Amino acid sequence: MATGLDGVVAAQTRLSHIDGMAGKLVIGGYAIEDLAPRESFEEVTHLLWHDRLPNSSELASLKDALAESRDLPVEVMDLLRAAAASRCAAIDALRFAADALALGSKNDDPQRDAARLVAAMPTIVATYSRLLQGLPAVAPRRDLGHAENTLYMLTGETPATMQVRALEAYWNTVVEHGLNASTFAARVIVSTHSDLVSAVTGALGALKGPRHGGVPGPVLDMLREIGEPGRAEPYLRAMLERGDRIMGFGHRAYKVRDPRAAVLERVARPLFEKNADDPLLALARAVEQTAVALLDEYKPGRGLRANVEFYAALVLHALELPKELFTPMFALSRVAGWTAHALEQLDGGRLIRPFSEYVGRTDRQWEVPDERP
Amino acid sequence: MATGLDGVVAAQTRLSHIDGMAGKLVIGGYAIEDLAPRESFEEVTHLLWHDRLPNSSELASLKDALAESRDLPVEVMDLLRAAAASRCAAIDALRFAADALALGSKNDDPQRDAARLVAAMPTIVATYSRLLQGLPAVAPRRDLGHAENTLYMLTGETPATMQVRALEAYWNTVVEHGLNASTFAARVIVSTHSDLVSAVTGALGALKGPRHGGVPGPVLDMLREIGEPGRAEPYLRAMLERGDRIMGFGHRAYKVRDPRAAVLERVARPLFEKNADDPLLALARAVEQTAVALLDEYKPGRGLRANVEFYAALVLHALELPKELFTPMFALSRVAGWTAHALEQLDGGRLIRPFSEYVGRTDRQWEVPDERP
Repeated sequence: MATGLDGVVAAQTRLSHIDGMAGKLVIGGYAIEDLAPRESFEEVTHLLWHDRLPNSSELASLKDALAESRDLPVEVMDLLRAAAASRCAAIDALRFAADALALGSKNDDPQRDAARLVAAMPTIVATYSRLLQGLPAVAPRRDLGHAENTLYMLTGETPATMQVRALEAYWNTVVEHGLNASTFAARVIVSTHSDLVSAVTGALGALKGPRHGGVPGPVLDMLREIGEPGRAEPYLRAMLERGDRIMGFGHRAYKVRDPRAAVLERVARPLFEKNADDPLLALARAVEQTAVALLDEYKPGRGLRANVEFYAALVLHALELPKELFTPMFALSRVAGWTAHALEQLDGGRLIRPFSEYVGRTDRQWEVPDERP
Repeated sequence: MATGLDGVVAAQTRLSHIDGMAGKLVIGGYAIEDLAPRESFEEVTHLLWHDRLPNSSELASLKDALAESRDLPVEVMDLLRAAAASRCAAIDALRFAADALALGSKNDDPQRDAARLVAAMPTIVATYSRLLQGLPAVAPRRDLGHAENTLYMLTGETPATMQVRALEAYWNTVVEHGLNASTFAARVIVSTHSDLVSAVTGALGALKGPRHGGVPGPVLDMLREIGEPGRAEPYLRAMLERGDRIMGFGHRAYKVRDPRAAVLERVARPLFEKNADDPLLALARAVEQTAVALLDEYKPGRGLRANVEFYAALVLHALELPKELFTPMFALSRVAGWTAHALEQLDGGRLIRPFSEYVGRTDRQWEVPDERP
């Protein structure tokens, strides 16, 4: 009885290919190791939307289109203020504020909705982060690239190039990953020929769940609790003895190390070299080594290895982002993948409507209310 | 290559069973013909959430819980005003306003979120309908039942009992129907252990699509264009010759007449008897008869028969609802089914994560930007 659709092919896609046995991830035809560290986020977004990396004039026009679509309507700003006053989770505020971007759309141009969502969601996240801290919002700057402007809106200061490159490499690494639950939700929604704001809102709703996007925070908590390499073995062994899952290890799609973990480990290096006092990266490597050995001991043959969340937590931490923003920052990348899937689904995809198996009562007769137990 | 998940079982459910060959629909163990005309909407909602029709004290406490949760936060009212000013579609306004109900929820009690959504969505629809007409909103009344209060908020007047009963019978008829795209979207979202506001928002996004919830309006347009029974045959024959689909006929799940069409035809009768000047019901019956004969001629063996949308349009029209509200009114019913599916999915369901088939490039080498075409 398949209830998780494990192994069921639900769509064809040109966007990414996962080889879970070999540990390979291809995005739009390029190996993730080649693509993620070299390209800007705008270039990777172009690749997903248009099936090729842009030349310089295509890149310039995409950058312009995004830079012009960053501002939020006043009603969305009001909504974020109300959300901050009631201490809403950032991922909820992002979802309903992104949903309210429908206010300014006629939904008649899916590609324009896609650009609007990618462009405006960083403004939502940065604005909300500042409102939660009691700080005034920082208006977007049109002269900055997508990643640079996002860091600028978060802090009010122009970020260092190394930080911009790290954020882009992180975003490129996690931009697209097949029919995970959020992407699949987006495709199901748009399979009815609905619009891209609806699709991305549904995806954000799915991403929020702890079984999907909510993991980077706990990885950091675990590393802090372990504290030093020598304590990794007893700490992790106790987890496994209790039957707990080790955060950041194992992925339904991979039986070997998630290729994104390797890319993100390399992205993290220069950020930590800058601050030699922070031993977190060295600790993470030691914890990974120990965890792998113990997982082979306790769960032999399962191939549980470091997944993307493990080193994503380190990169986001090194960018001085609070844990509360980890999932929203992930969403600012994945929205490019969600919109690309939605555009692909709109281009000839069928209505997605599976069957269910009835397991309820079959022997009921209607009875008048007074005779009910 | 299955891309619509046709015939693939994606979940077990006790909520409904569709027998598409026999034309039978069972809701929570009861035949739709027995249930829909007899029960209040609150009773059917209780059946879906708790797997039994309520006794009188259970019903009273559900009615109280719903009556107390009808008011909208001021920020949601503001959002609806902004939406009305920009002439947003009612289904979009319903979606992002329902999404913003997350403002008042801690998401720690899925059953409470379910009640909040069912209770407050009619207030959103009625308020928005009045704002679009330039009328002041009518505050909900706690002393009225769910359907009666909804009609009261729409018009500002206490509705006739016959109208209340017709709305309830309509809502009961369309409350739940297996893994249609909106319900499936809700289950995919909550399969990550996300929350019910997220799930219902995603479902509303899917429902909006013309391949799913957007059909009742066109049925009415078609009947008006036909105008009189004698014109049905040439009109429908011309549609079929052009290769057009006849609105309100055929359903992926049924190879015979949709059992909901029969229930809704009966629901429509007293509403039209009241107003003998409106020949629409008689026209609809004649159009159905002609359409069935022509569909058998043009698409033999396909079993294309009247579906739920065909007579739903007549009931909603007889309740004096504008076409713009047809899909939102449908959503006010289906939200009980969506939330019931979400609660069922949370109770032991697995993460829904299918696979995709890669059909993109496999021969790409990364090249420096200056060398791109």
